[in-house]
Amino acid sequence: MTQAELVADIVRRGRAASERLAELRPDVKDAALRQAADALEGAAEEIAAENTRDLEAGRAKGLAAPLLDRLRLDAERIGAMAAGLREVAALPDPVGEVTRMWTRPNGLQVGRMRIPLGVILVIYESRPNVTADVAALCLKSGNAAILRGGSEAIHSNRAIAKVLRESIARAGVPEDALLLVSDSDRALVDALLLRDDAIDLVIPRGGEGLIRSVAEKSRIPVIKHYKGVCHVYLDEFADPKRATELAVNSKVQRVSVCNAAETLLVHAKLSERVVADVLGALAAHGVELHACARTREHFPAALPARDEDYHTEWLAKVMSVRMVDSLDQAIEHIRRYGSNHTETIVTQDVTRAREFVRRVNSSSVFVNASTRFSDGFQLGLGAEVGVSTTKLHWYGPMGLEGLTTQKFIAFGEGTILE
Amino acid sequence: MTQAELVADIVRRGRAASERLAELRPDVKDAALRQAADALEGAAEEIAAENTRDLEAGRAKGLAAPLLDRLRLDAERIGAMAAGLREVAALPDPVGEVTRMWTRPNGLQVGRMRIPLGVILVIYESRPNVTADVAALCLKSGNAAILRGGSEAIHSNRAIAKVLRESIARAGVPEDALLLVSDSDRALVDALLLRDDAIDLVIPRGGEGLIRSVAEKSRIPVIKHYKGVCHVYLDEFADPKRATELAVNSKVQRVSVCNAAETLLVHAKLSERVVADVLGALAAHGVELHACARTREHFPAALPARDEDYHTEWLAKVMSVRMVDSLDQAIEHIRRYGSNHTETIVTQDVTRAREFVRRVNSSSVFVNASTRFSDGFQLGLGAEVGVSTTKLHWYGPMGLEGLTTQKFIAFGEGTILE
Repeated sequence: MTQAELVADIVRRGRAASERLAELRPDVKDAALRQAADALEGAAEEIAAENTRDLEAGRAKGLAAPLLDRLRLDAERIGAMAAGLREVAALPDPVGEVTRMWTRPNGLQVGRMRIPLGVILVIYESRPNVTADVAALCLKSGNAAILRGGSEAIHSNRAIAKVLRESIARAGVPEDALLLVSDSDRALVDALLLRDDAIDLVIPRGGEGLIRSVAEKSRIPVIKHYKGVCHVYLDEFADPKRATELAVNSKVQRVSVCNAAETLLVHAKLSERVVADVLGALAAHGVELHACARTREHFPAALPARDEDYHTEWLAKVMSVRMVDSLDQAIEHIRRYGSNHTETIVTQDVTRAREFVRRVNSSSVFVNASTRFSDGFQLGLGAEVGVSTTKLHWYGPMGLEGLTTQKFIAFGEGTILE
Repeated sequence: MTQAELVADIVRRGRAASERLAELRPDVKDAALRQAADALEGAAEEIAAENTRDLEAGRAKGLAAPLLDRLRLDAERIGAMAAGLREVAALPDPVGEVTRMWTRPNGLQVGRMRIPLGVILVIYESRPNVTADVAALCLKSGNAAILRGGSEAIHSNRAIAKVLRESIARAGVPEDALLLVSDSDRALVDALLLRDDAIDLVIPRGGEGLIRSVAEKSRIPVIKHYKGVCHVYLDEFADPKRATELAVNSKVQRVSVCNAAETLLVHAKLSERVVADVLGALAAHGVELHACARTREHFPAALPARDEDYHTEWLAKVMSVRMVDSLDQAIEHIRRYGSNHTETIVTQDVTRAREFVRRVNSSSVFVNASTRFSDGFQLGLGAEVGVSTTKLHWYGPMGLEGLTTQKFIAFGEGTILE
């Protein structure tokens, strides 16, 4: 097939599968997901063997050790993928949910009902387990998935997709519900990104570079998740114990993730002793502090912060610190340096808490809770397909609901417009 | 200013205004809208005088009579604009609404709260009243509006925008909440369409050509409303009286609008007499019928339909008719020829009704109700900024809610992630 034919074939198969998928009963989809989980476990050796080919090629290409680790699949990781499929099967089905219903003066009963988006293109990097995760979320929400994984994981991805396609087909779900694009040609993806007539959404999962490049080329709407420059704001009325616990948990519970805090804002009227305690606790956890001059007066061990530090997503045991004179200043700092991801206020004052929640329009805004909760699982969405830091369609951690839209439905009794 | 400076100035002012707007109390916004309504009425003569300049230029350019009529503003139409502003002021404020709230096992209370999108660019054609309508909806939902009207209405739009800006400023709303782009250079709009860093949404209001051209050039998400090829499906179990009333109302109540029906699908088992009655009633209302061969056996007065007729948005007293053997065939026809706008089934059978609602994924799907109800006012949204026939962000008639997004909020008690 020429590339144009290949693109036409992929979108045609995706659309046809999406029409059938949208009509499937929840129990058919759930049985398919459970069957796919069993099949993955049954094919663990085969998948591991294909994974070994990727690992060998990766070593030959000189991939760094952390990348090789992310690429590796063993029986345990394959078991985790299968468990993930079973968890998605156990979630409530979003399709067909009527979110609200009301009656018009003329008796017309009007509502909104969730339906799948249609066809979703997911572009991701090295970890092959994403293939199973994303396929499961798309299938459950009634969407066909076109998956484009990283070239380093090509054999692993092909093996996983083969097992999934065969097993869902046995359960009565069209195998084209999952289409893996394993052509290594980047031009093929670029051509898919122009097909806004046939593909409804693009989700790039990876670094900022990948996301920017996809967003620039795409005619199709893109869920963008740039970076997480998350803030912890210790208000004048912060409880001292909570201040320390929340600053430490937000920063060090896991440093390499987007919802880890990167900047600590401290109200100038918070007692010197509390400031010293919080910063001391962070330092004791090995955090390198980059602080403004006023903070360093209280805590001279901190390094001086440069302006660019406040823009930085450290993803490491490093934290920027700034002292502010008011809630206004804290909010202004967040607007200027933040990335619309997650911010939390630590305060016992209800007016300050309300004001922070009302005025800060990042995608997750918390009171007396760790930034680490900004995650689909932790917030109770049951799953996560990504975090959107732009406002259209979805904002914040995105689960199954974000993979649907809502149509209007209305029931009359021969109701006509006068 | 150079054009680049002008673009930079517009987006800077829009963003600054949007930050202030997002924080305004509902009563401040509503008072500003009522004050703007009074000011429009107070400036009616001034506005009408500017409108006369547009009308004269239009006549000199040879604009057609219907276009000149759409362009015309008199005291009555200015009064209608003012009434529109007061109606928007009376609607519930969508900003700050918490749509759902739940508690996690660890006690963390999580919710989703509506917030404005930010800055909205609206591109529209000749009718100058759109300037006031759109400005009101954006202001009420806390969004800054950048408006680009048609060049034929330039003096009218400038006069309306001046009155609105001055009156909202007196009420404590930033005047830059409404920015009118009156530069006639198309390149300026094209430059704005690339500013996805500063503008959150684009709404083109006008014909398919305008929408396609905006969608192609824009980096910013676009609400697309292509066309309305709406279907009325008379099921085998349709009530005869309702069949006639709903077919006639959907087609002729107003023919020039997107939610008027364009195609009638008739189940082959519907009695010959009912089919003849329905088609006779349509013909009696002056509707020209383009029907398939099987339909013409029952109703020879109909013209033969060509395949392309079923793709056509007539916007006139013309209707395509096709006989189908089953609900499946009706749904297949709607998928193939429809435009995801509005479809209605006429049936007394509850299973058929449920199946139609479940399986047809157009943006509005009705049972025993006229397609003409697919409209923000009629469905109870209180206002309408457009109808989206694509699924991302919003699908179907779009009111104030569609101009918002939702952030996650969470309240803990020093809650940390273990």
